[in-house]
Amino acid sequence: MTSLVNEADPFRAAVHEAVDLLLGHWRALADERLPVTPDLAPGAVAAALPAGPPERGEPLDRILRDTWDTVVPGLVHWQHPAFLAYYPTGNSPASVLAELVTAGLGVQGMMWTTGPAATELEQVVTDWLAKALGLPERFLHTSANGGGVIQDSASSAVLVATVAALHRASRGRWRDHGTEGRYRLYRTEEANSCVPKAARVAGLGASAAVPTLPGTARMDPDALRARIAADRRAGAVPAIVVATAGTTGTCAVDPLADLGRICREEGVWLHVDAAYAGPAALCPEHRWLNDGVEAADSYAVNAHKWMRTGTPCDVMWTADRRALTDAMSITPSYLRNDATETGEVVDYRDWQIPLGRPMRALKLWYVMRAHGLEGLRSAIRHDVRMAELLAGLVARENGFELVTHRLGLVVFRLDTDRRTREAAGRLAGDPGIQLTPATVDGRPALRAAVGSPLLTEAGVHRVWRTIRDHARACA
Amino acid sequence: MTSLVNEADPFRAAVHEAVDLLLGHWRALADERLPVTPDLAPGAVAAALPAGPPERGEPLDRILRDTWDTVVPGLVHWQHPAFLAYYPTGNSPASVLAELVTAGLGVQGMMWTTGPAATELEQVVTDWLAKALGLPERFLHTSANGGGVIQDSASSAVLVATVAALHRASRGRWRDHGTEGRYRLYRTEEANSCVPKAARVAGLGASAAVPTLPGTARMDPDALRARIAADRRAGAVPAIVVATAGTTGTCAVDPLADLGRICREEGVWLHVDAAYAGPAALCPEHRWLNDGVEAADSYAVNAHKWMRTGTPCDVMWTADRRALTDAMSITPSYLRNDATETGEVVDYRDWQIPLGRPMRALKLWYVMRAHGLEGLRSAIRHDVRMAELLAGLVARENGFELVTHRLGLVVFRLDTDRRTREAAGRLAGDPGIQLTPATVDGRPALRAAVGSPLLTEAGVHRVWRTIRDHARACA
Repeated sequence: MTSLVNEADPFRAAVHEAVDLLLGHWRALADERLPVTPDLAPGAVAAALPAGPPERGEPLDRILRDTWDTVVPGLVHWQHPAFLAYYPTGNSPASVLAELVTAGLGVQGMMWTTGPAATELEQVVTDWLAKALGLPERFLHTSANGGGVIQDSASSAVLVATVAALHRASRGRWRDHGTEGRYRLYRTEEANSCVPKAARVAGLGASAAVPTLPGTARMDPDALRARIAADRRAGAVPAIVVATAGTTGTCAVDPLADLGRICREEGVWLHVDAAYAGPAALCPEHRWLNDGVEAADSYAVNAHKWMRTGTPCDVMWTADRRALTDAMSITPSYLRNDATETGEVVDYRDWQIPLGRPMRALKLWYVMRAHGLEGLRSAIRHDVRMAELLAGLVARENGFELVTHRLGLVVFRLDTDRRTREAAGRLAGDPGIQLTPATVDGRPALRAAVGSPLLTEAGVHRVWRTIRDHARACA
Repeated sequence: MTSLVNEADPFRAAVHEAVDLLLGHWRALADERLPVTPDLAPGAVAAALPAGPPERGEPLDRILRDTWDTVVPGLVHWQHPAFLAYYPTGNSPASVLAELVTAGLGVQGMMWTTGPAATELEQVVTDWLAKALGLPERFLHTSANGGGVIQDSASSAVLVATVAALHRASRGRWRDHGTEGRYRLYRTEEANSCVPKAARVAGLGASAAVPTLPGTARMDPDALRARIAADRRAGAVPAIVVATAGTTGTCAVDPLADLGRICREEGVWLHVDAAYAGPAALCPEHRWLNDGVEAADSYAVNAHKWMRTGTPCDVMWTADRRALTDAMSITPSYLRNDATETGEVVDYRDWQIPLGRPMRALKLWYVMRAHGLEGLRSAIRHDVRMAELLAGLVARENGFELVTHRLGLVVFRLDTDRRTREAAGRLAGDPGIQLTPATVDGRPALRAAVGSPLLTEAGVHRVWRTIRDHARACA
């Protein structure tokens, strides 16, 4: 099965078989006939595989069979109704279909000239999504200096924002002279791990955390202002503030309007990481998430978290696209072309770390069209309702404390830290459910993030019984 | 079409339709019934699309139809036999099938514990490929401190190698204190644009190019040694040499053995970017490409260039995985788990820039099994034969000069620079072919990189006639 044209029949048959296998798999997940996590020792899957590749080609149907015999039983099923760990990774038939078509077309869209439709579709769908989320005009491709781009992850979006900010803060010196340890990134301890990682990768070293407002997980604007002033006095250059709308630990939202005001006054780049919570702004009742985003220089949401889109699909907008492209463009002779030189086109290679890229926009286009805004909103509302149901069950139960509940996230603990830790251990050993441990205000807690498209009310009650039973078994 | 389970029939029907559309598309490419590049003004595709997303969902068959009506005619067809631009982006039915299954399973494999089989399959297939390429044992997961990882691109591999090298060169200081403008990356002008871009992103500023050996595009080892010595005297810390096996311009191969010796003596990280040429080492007759790779600290090939695998699929190996993971790991409470703490498992989030990642290994597993090593070798040999044929036609033609020919790359020019530039312009305006302009030894040239799985001998003759006719039309 090696040619694009000479073995049409076996390819067609394999795709037909694959779609039936996937439909059966999704049905098995919906019915909870599969566990969430496998019961496997490290190395078991590797040991079941041959030590080397075959010398001669094998038929696709055998490879599919081995996938279901060897790989699928060794997976954690992120689409399982009782998968409540991390934040979700979305999925839907439209997203899967788009991946098939994208792969089949096999286009590499690094520049407009290597895939005009790939590029323009990305400009159009990122504009669509910006409007649907109520983001400012200045993030649109139709604005003077804004636009959207699809990154692989919120991590990459933060890194891209950081290098653009360094370029701007250094007035271009950074390109030639590097970071020289003088530039500062600001974030809280609640920022996702990708934020200090981006600071480190960009050569900034450790990024000291700005304190949070007392009793909250939200950045303290006065503390930020004081930190910036102290850094300036010490000869450092404040470059970027990374705020979060929907922190990983507790779904807290930084005070964007206050931070934006400070960033404007200080000439510091404001990036808003709304990886998880951002898509909720599709619904008017959650539109408050965007309050203050007008002052942001860049903003990112993971369509692959809460928009029924498979990973990877992070959508990042900037109001200063020239900072991105000035920071990142390098044009050797083999990348020169007339379209680029006119300046009339977007070359997405200069909006991201990698040079090459697949056609990224087809998936978002399929998902937005197949669901419609109505469908995407009702998916979010469904998940929020499921989280409310779970939060209510937790709050009413003796021996449980509801720590926080926002959007699809429910964080709780038991009456003592020892019991919370014991319950976390028991739950981690139960293949029928997955949650994540967390530390909130220095105390252990458990996070349940709702997001499987297959979770129903009955499923929430099953999840709750599992949690409660493990808790009751704790001494 | 929004649920994973409630609309099985329309999803199945849409996938069946998509596979037939793709088979028809590949056949049309094989028969050259489609142009390579569209005849479109910037903005034409965007103008053909609605200004916003639909409020209500649309059926998948309508979205598929619009894909072929609006998007496909606006693409550059990287799989077209007469697409000779850049280096190729591979494809095959096995690769496309794997993307469908990967998307359907919807797993996020950032850590072993979030997808044990996704992680172990990646360890196994990267070991498979290392053995098939004849790479050193120290790159295998079964070695003490080595292993492979799938990155999205050679760009990301270079960046990851750079941060690992900075971490090692600084003895860990870099994590907290940043680059401080003291660390150096070495490369030639012939290195891909992603190399200076990685240096810039990592906060190193401009990376001065090391001179090449006279009359070649290969790094001059003596010049490297002198540069390192001068930098040390100036108080800088040499951190990494990025060598290339198969440069973008002329497919030149840096003298890896000499560079490796210097790097070992100097304690400098050696990364080998074999993005394009690397897979050729599957064939014994091209195994020389690996000469000297024993001393490398990391090595990367793009399976998505010359291994019939769709983008993205860059495979990177390191002999010092602890440098990667020490440089990049950050573990907040929600990422803590027992498996990680035992140290018995691989968490790929610490081998890459992003936190999250899809299940990346399935595609490489499908491609290696479906083709077998025999099939992958015969694909490479086919492409090399096609390039030889084209190079021979160029060499025998009056008024043409064969500048260089290696593996699947043929670089040539006309008898005067003016005529070369004119021919390049004419070819750029011909939708039936795509080549890339290049500058070799300061003079204009044209690059033809063979790699479409659909290119036949007859196709090479058609390509050649097109090139020759445009050349003859030049004044």
